[in-house]
Amino acid sequence: MTILLYDLVGRDGARPFSPHCWKATMAIAHKGLDISTVPTRFLEVPTVEGGVSKLVPVIRDGEKVVADSFAIALYLDEAYPERPTLFCGDGGKAMARFIERWSQLTIHPYVTTAAIMDLHAMQDEANAAYFRQNREQRFGQRLEEVVAARDAGLGAFRTSLEPLRSMLAYQPFIGGQSPLFADYIVFGALQWARIASPYRLLDDSDVVAQWFERCLDLHDGLGRTVAAAS
Amino acid sequence: MTILLYDLVGRDGARPFSPHCWKATMAIAHKGLDISTVPTRFLEVPTVEGGVSKLVPVIRDGEKVVADSFAIALYLDEAYPERPTLFCGDGGKAMARFIERWSQLTIHPYVTTAAIMDLHAMQDEANAAYFRQNREQRFGQRLEEVVAARDAGLGAFRTSLEPLRSMLAYQPFIGGQSPLFADYIVFGALQWARIASPYRLLDDSDVVAQWFERCLDLHDGLGRTVAAAS
Repeated sequence: MTILLYDLVGRDGARPFSPHCWKATMAIAHKGLDISTVPTRFLEVPTVEGGVSKLVPVIRDGEKVVADSFAIALYLDEAYPERPTLFCGDGGKAMARFIERWSQLTIHPYVTTAAIMDLHAMQDEANAAYFRQNREQRFGQRLEEVVAARDAGLGAFRTSLEPLRSMLAYQPFIGGQSPLFADYIVFGALQWARIASPYRLLDDSDVVAQWFERCLDLHDGLGRTVAAAS
Repeated sequence: MTILLYDLVGRDGARPFSPHCWKATMAIAHKGLDISTVPTRFLEVPTVEGGVSKLVPVIRDGEKVVADSFAIALYLDEAYPERPTLFCGDGGKAMARFIERWSQLTIHPYVTTAAIMDLHAMQDEANAAYFRQNREQRFGQRLEEVVAARDAGLGAFRTSLEPLRSMLAYQPFIGGQSPLFADYIVFGALQWARIASPYRLLDDSDVVAQWFERCLDLHDGLGRTVAAAS
């Protein structure tokens, strides 16, 4: 089976960067399904599958269209129950939601701060203008003012990862002995940073960085098929 | 089956207050097992079951002795697989560990700050002296200095619960439609505060407070059998 994924890109169609699309990419690979991507710019998102969602990822699997990375993971697990599970039980489904909320509220704001000028620089002219206008309205600040906070915030960001860091003393993945969708949720956030920006979020000696490297190795090194920003 | 629980108390043997013991209490009730408690003061912990652990909870189930609330929950699920599950799958087991680390590193430090003088006041003379000496060594501060930070920290504490608050827009419990051990982990921390201190951690309008009330209702209102501090 081949899943069609509308995947957010900038000027370079071979550098998908969206954290949420990466969650979907990893989930599709985890299920052992083939993936065919439609590189999609910000301004094209409203036209995806007739405007089914304001955001990507969106997937098409035959006749079925699903938007939202979490909904995609739930769909894939239900549609392909004979393939490796993304949640490993209803408890895992429920708690993955907590981890998604934690990642979104803990990691995403700082990655946005740290990478916002790089994300802007990845877009073509029209999309860069959209991105600047949209994000400056959201933050009530110029992009240049947003990014100015990143050095001062780095220490607090690293501290905010302490629950994950501490958990890694017990098990190699959020999913336990092997990765589940919860791992891809947090992976997506750090992969977004890795692809967009050379800014160094983590020390190599950090067990969180080591876990991220393990995630980059998964599914034949799928995460490494896009080089880190330099 | 009756499980013997060594449960931490202060001067009043009927007011168990330990967050970790409450996790075990709720887990035993969730499994539909009877519970028999041994009220245990701080200074008695080293003598529990021949000194099996530096901390309570410790349970005895027939010949089997288990220490540590998470290990107790895992044990109960393995020993009584025909009774309601505490994890609902291996994914739930793995991710409950993340939630435990999040609760321990996010909620526990602030509850300690907020309730430390009240916790001290709950102990008899010998245990109060132990508690003061032990905690002042840990913090490098007088207890009176620790608690002085609570008003200034309250806003940040409430903000730190945002992942839980946000998750509650999706589902009524951390475990999904019904509670699992992950709920009892966070419940234990807030129940510790509720029993030790009248200090108001949450607004009634907060969905986290509403979730906590739902947890107090569980298992025939088990959590309410000990009145809130006043």
